[in-house]
Amino acid sequence: MADTYTQMVNSNLGRSVARKLGLPQPAVLRRYKSGQPLVTGPVVVVGDTPGADKLAAELLSWDLDVRRHAVPAEKLAAIILVLDELEHPAELERPVLAAAGSLRDLQPCGRLITLSRPAAEASSPHAAAARQGVDGFLRSLAKELRAGATGNGVLLGNGTATTSPSVLGAVRFFLSARSAFVDGQFLSVSTEDGALPPDPDRPLAGKVAVVTGAARGIGAEIARTLHRDGATLVLVDIPAAGDQLASVANEVRGTALQLDITGADAGQRIIDHAVQRHGRLDIVVHNAGVTRDKLMANMDQARWNLVININIAAQLRINEALLASEYFRSTPRIVSVASTSGIAGNRGQTNYAASKGGVMGMVRATAPLLATAGGTINAVAPGFIETDMTARIPFAVREVARRLNSLQQGGMPSDVAETIAFLASDAAGGINGQVLRVCGQNLVGA
Amino acid sequence: MADTYTQMVNSNLGRSVARKLGLPQPAVLRRYKSGQPLVTGPVVVVGDTPGADKLAAELLSWDLDVRRHAVPAEKLAAIILVLDELEHPAELERPVLAAAGSLRDLQPCGRLITLSRPAAEASSPHAAAARQGVDGFLRSLAKELRAGATGNGVLLGNGTATTSPSVLGAVRFFLSARSAFVDGQFLSVSTEDGALPPDPDRPLAGKVAVVTGAARGIGAEIARTLHRDGATLVLVDIPAAGDQLASVANEVRGTALQLDITGADAGQRIIDHAVQRHGRLDIVVHNAGVTRDKLMANMDQARWNLVININIAAQLRINEALLASEYFRSTPRIVSVASTSGIAGNRGQTNYAASKGGVMGMVRATAPLLATAGGTINAVAPGFIETDMTARIPFAVREVARRLNSLQQGGMPSDVAETIAFLASDAAGGINGQVLRVCGQNLVGA
Repeated sequence: MADTYTQMVNSNLGRSVARKLGLPQPAVLRRYKSGQPLVTGPVVVVGDTPGADKLAAELLSWDLDVRRHAVPAEKLAAIILVLDELEHPAELERPVLAAAGSLRDLQPCGRLITLSRPAAEASSPHAAAARQGVDGFLRSLAKELRAGATGNGVLLGNGTATTSPSVLGAVRFFLSARSAFVDGQFLSVSTEDGALPPDPDRPLAGKVAVVTGAARGIGAEIARTLHRDGATLVLVDIPAAGDQLASVANEVRGTALQLDITGADAGQRIIDHAVQRHGRLDIVVHNAGVTRDKLMANMDQARWNLVININIAAQLRINEALLASEYFRSTPRIVSVASTSGIAGNRGQTNYAASKGGVMGMVRATAPLLATAGGTINAVAPGFIETDMTARIPFAVREVARRLNSLQQGGMPSDVAETIAFLASDAAGGINGQVLRVCGQNLVGA
Repeated sequence: MADTYTQMVNSNLGRSVARKLGLPQPAVLRRYKSGQPLVTGPVVVVGDTPGADKLAAELLSWDLDVRRHAVPAEKLAAIILVLDELEHPAELERPVLAAAGSLRDLQPCGRLITLSRPAAEASSPHAAAARQGVDGFLRSLAKELRAGATGNGVLLGNGTATTSPSVLGAVRFFLSARSAFVDGQFLSVSTEDGALPPDPDRPLAGKVAVVTGAARGIGAEIARTLHRDGATLVLVDIPAAGDQLASVANEVRGTALQLDITGADAGQRIIDHAVQRHGRLDIVVHNAGVTRDKLMANMDQARWNLVININIAAQLRINEALLASEYFRSTPRIVSVASTSGIAGNRGQTNYAASKGGVMGMVRATAPLLATAGGTINAVAPGFIETDMTARIPFAVREVARRLNSLQQGGMPSDVAETIAFLASDAAGGINGQVLRVCGQNLVGA
């Protein structure tokens, strides 16, 4: 559900009033439902490299309406800008100006996607400049798009083709309504691992997934989304939330595990439960987390330690058990919930930001350890999400916070859940050690 | 000079009005003047590692009033938090709570500085989590500090001691009024190179420095600052700006070189001029840059190419000449001016952001090439700076843009210049391939 203001400015009267007063005009975002078509219009693939040709051919095989050149005035679902062979900033001109000509034809909730390569892997200063130039370009362009359209980029490691499984997986995710609140972001694909699912509506079929903090809010929504995508669920939360946990478990036909994740044996108990009840363990989503906000000048030991213990120390301990387990070795997936507060800091949240920064450091350092088992670990960093927690923020503060992004609205718990479901899928097998923001390109100050 | 609003709220009446209305209350920042003491009060060094002991001893040798434990209610110039041996997020608690107790005693324009190590170089997930936790912590704390106080961090490569020359150089820079508008940032020191200057008031004595785009604005201010710090200046600008260029050259007793930096021979002409007129070339500041703002949907070839050519292609070409020259091999320094727009993107600036992203990519990729000559290349990324250019932004837009940072004000050209002067100095010899924002911890949206 869109917030009240967003509903208002999307009525006929509200639209005209908002326009006259120069108020924000957030669009109602297209969100994913099972069976929904990937896109509802033509997709233009801009770029004249063999990589662009191959990607266009692949998208054709998905039965998309693919154009290699835009047809004037035809409304477009997406523009894909393939920049996989840039060697110098001067080479940006031709493809970006070709794409510019189609921007006005992008549908509401349309997509702009760049495919380029990471600057850090460039072999010369001019290639690095061109590659990093795509970054500044895309982030600017994402701020110019309107009506719920988003711009995101896929970064292909030097050896990675435009048609590798996880590049296609990332392109599919960014094209789809699953990525509604992901905007102005880049996702790196570093290996040829991964595979597109046989059934795109059930990408997690056959998988057993654990979600911590699943009794309510974003955690419960993650459980619903993984269930919808075909996974069998183990739902973890503290005993005090037992009733709510049981209710979510019923809803998604999963099993509930009451557990304090900060316990020394939490990891082993999670593994034992999953294996004994469901025969395997494929996916762990570290969602459980708390806030205890306080200016640092007033911070006390109890608030500091509680947040550090639950939000990061517990994840580290559980991961150690997972990495040591013989039951977590068949393309395992860990996805952690970080926060834009951990990236940019947030007033009153030194403890929370330290813990969420910690999650991101942990994810990057754990990635090589999981790779040896063909696994991945990644994080999502939500920005302002409409939850019971943010609903308690005073109105004026909340109203500013939720508009301070390129989509001029807060995200939904489902936006975080969809991104986690994607990172947990086989289609994301070549994506490891990454942090993907789900924030509408939030103005976060870092 | 502070902007009019900042002057107003710092008057007796203005302060009381702003407080009652809940308006931003930007402080007048302490800025550097030759001969000014480094700090004007005690400095507390928090942390119980040998690295903390050694840093405290070094600061004592600078005649600072160093405390290993805060004295209750004593006003402090700075708190330095040494976190150089963190192995687990749980180890953050003791030092950060010790520092928290002193936050209320920080003077106006006081300093909080962390010393920690880069998460990417950690040997375990728990160490990486602890190190990245410092990032979230510091960026949050910087947003909590008031009255012109700032928080910044130094990241010490694994082999780098707390008393290495460039760590001390970075600590000195962050302590000093030179870093007035640098806030919420980290600076990495990766080698033991560098040396503190014999005379801290003339750190560039004996150096010959080239500044492009020096006829006005930030470029002219860079020239003045490098001159004040002891450098001999070569001032470069286009022939059309010849009169202004000559005037700045007169002011700083340097020589003027009228030159189109996009010319194929620009690099060689710069080298020839510096060597023929001044006998050497030590420092090149790539400051020249232009904007040609336009939404991408309306972008034309001329606007796109002009910005790319001047802002990044010219720097690449000049650097090639510098790297090939036998006259640029004695601890050479290149400092480029990037922009927070290149980091986060900016509406209407796809071309500019691509070019400034390009500058950052170029800097990172050129760093290893310069390192072989004992040299460094770094970039500064200014946020909202009070210049003739920003003065032309409509009042309301400008007023919002300049307050959207932790210091609630725009920076001054001198803030950019001071940061460049530091990166150009011998004291920054261990800092290479870095981008340092001069933005007051701007809310930039990336």
